Amino acid sequence: MMAALLRNKARMANLSWLQPRLLIPRKRPIQSQSNLWPEFKGEEYMTKKIQQINKALDEAVPLQHPTMLHQAMRYTLLAGGKRLLPILCIASCELVGGNQSSVMPIACAFEMIKTEGLVLDDLPCMDNDDLRRGKPTNHKVFGEATSILASHALLCLAIEYVATRTKNVSPDRLIQAIAEICSTIGSKGATAGQFADLNSEGKEVSLSELEFIHKNKTGKILEASVACGVLVGGGNEEQIQILRKYAKCVGLAFQVWDDILDITGSTERLGKTAGKDLLCNKATYPKLMGMDESKKFARQLVAEAKEEVSYFDSTRAAPLHHFADFAVSRNM
Amino acid sequence: MMAALLRNKARMANLSWLQPRLLIPRKRPIQSQSNLWPEFKGEEYMTKKIQQINKALDEAVPLQHPTMLHQAMRYTLLAGGKRLLPILCIASCELVGGNQSSVMPIACAFEMIKTEGLVLDDLPCMDNDDLRRGKPTNHKVFGEATSILASHALLCLAIEYVATRTKNVSPDRLIQAIAEICSTIGSKGATAGQFADLNSEGKEVSLSELEFIHKNKTGKILEASVACGVLVGGGNEEQIQILRKYAKCVGLAFQVWDDILDITGSTERLGKTAGKDLLCNKATYPKLMGMDESKKFARQLVAEAKEEVSYFDSTRAAPLHHFADFAVSRNM
Repeated sequence: MMAALLRNKARMANLSWLQPRLLIPRKRPIQSQSNLWPEFKGEEYMTKKIQQINKALDEAVPLQHPTMLHQAMRYTLLAGGKRLLPILCIASCELVGGNQSSVMPIACAFEMIKTEGLVLDDLPCMDNDDLRRGKPTNHKVFGEATSILASHALLCLAIEYVATRTKNVSPDRLIQAIAEICSTIGSKGATAGQFADLNSEGKEVSLSELEFIHKNKTGKILEASVACGVLVGGGNEEQIQILRKYAKCVGLAFQVWDDILDITGSTERLGKTAGKDLLCNKATYPKLMGMDESKKFARQLVAEAKEEVSYFDSTRAAPLHHFADFAVSRNM
Repeated sequence: MMAALLRNKARMANLSWLQPRLLIPRKRPIQSQSNLWPEFKGEEYMTKKIQQINKALDEAVPLQHPTMLHQAMRYTLLAGGKRLLPILCIASCELVGGNQSSVMPIACAFEMIKTEGLVLDDLPCMDNDDLRRGKPTNHKVFGEATSILASHALLCLAIEYVATRTKNVSPDRLIQAIAEICSTIGSKGATAGQFADLNSEGKEVSLSELEFIHKNKTGKILEASVACGVLVGGGNEEQIQILRKYAKCVGLAFQVWDDILDITGSTERLGKTAGKDLLCNKATYPKLMGMDESKKFARQLVAEAKEEVSYFDSTRAAPLHHFADFAVSRNM
């Protein structure tokens, strides 16, 4: 019933991408009807990409003077994490024929931006969290001031890194990518989402307010990661639009699943404090829709995401299929 | 004696731009030997530029949803201020034949960046200040969390604004400008300066440490403002280098004078807490060099700055001459 209600709400709010349309025949060309790349091993692919991204991040933020500031920047950045944004960015670039070396600086930038946001979110005046990526939060180790400065420096470095390290990409496309990144994390993006999230704590939050929070806090940056991947890979506007729809579905699926894991997961496995949402009386999908409907909704979104990328050659799209499945099969 | 010591230090540290060389004949071509533009009215020029910059800033950050977040962004940004960075940026652009409309988005970006840095500096965990630009500090009005988010959003908007609003400038130059801006405020620039500044409080600070703080905290961004002005105005590398030297001298002169005003000025006139440096036992030039030597040093720097821009047509360089004089004639 909540899913039907959500679809109605989505229709009213013109969020057409939220409406499952699995039965609607596709009008866009499907370049290849072959089955999914049979040799594609999703877990191996993810593990390899994570290793390559971690190496690139380690090199991107060397330990230099002032030492403690750079230690704080590296601490949360290199503490693990699923590296979802950089993987999506690279996969989208390769999907349209680009290569990893061109896109790696932007992929790294997405992880730096993700991390600087987390460092701020964890501050005592924000979510006041003690644990992140399985370790004490940044401010617990380095103090608030250094933590804020490290976050600030990571944001600056992210954009500088894109501007100075990206090779074999036209400056026009690079500027478009920089504009998209900054827009998605600014006052009309992630910062707005975090602001709304903070102001929603302890209050009754409607589904549309919850959607606003997630769309801005996590959705737009996921969209930006695929859009920038396609941009850098030399793709066209149609391809960007398709991947934006894919990312919207996957992003929301991740969020719904995160809400579910906050209830069903353990602090040890999650690497962050479990049950935090309940404790803070935060608006979550299980709270608004119930647990079963939330799971059903997340899986519908994944199916929709996979349907979107059926436009592309299925071999090349295999990583994106795997990524979508991962959103609702993970336990951390 | 301290000035001589400083010159020796500068020589040893290869900071050749710190050595007054007023008596050394210039080898660079001076394009015009005419006297300073006789009609140039410095104060009128500054007042007009400030009005134009304030109007542009007001338009750049409209009051939109989420309202309180945008109120916090606008609060410190539009609370006055000397607008030194945007004026220098515009003057440098016009100096090499560029026009104000092309450079205004970058000029605005410099003020946004200056402001977001001030908002962070004033936080309780940093300098813990209550007064800025003659009004209660941002966190005093909006709370710490909103203040940090507003600062974050201003930084994002600054870069986005440069990327999306700059017209009639090649994308190559624009990327160079974005890289310079991000570099000067990151972990090798202003953030490093603020980090060192925080860690110097209550400690004995050497002249070289004080130089590190000022060079990074305020010097590099002043340099970036002229470099980006010349870049956008279509100038060449030689012109950028000359203006970098000019900015280094003027930037340090401003800093020395700020240290002097912290002792001689009043809170009301300064718009920020006077005597704060003394109270926090901060390293300052008057403390290290004495008051008279500090004044002499600041004036030497101004003379050196003016000597640098004698390379240019004196009519076009008049604003930069005025700007240098302003550094050591102001009482706020």
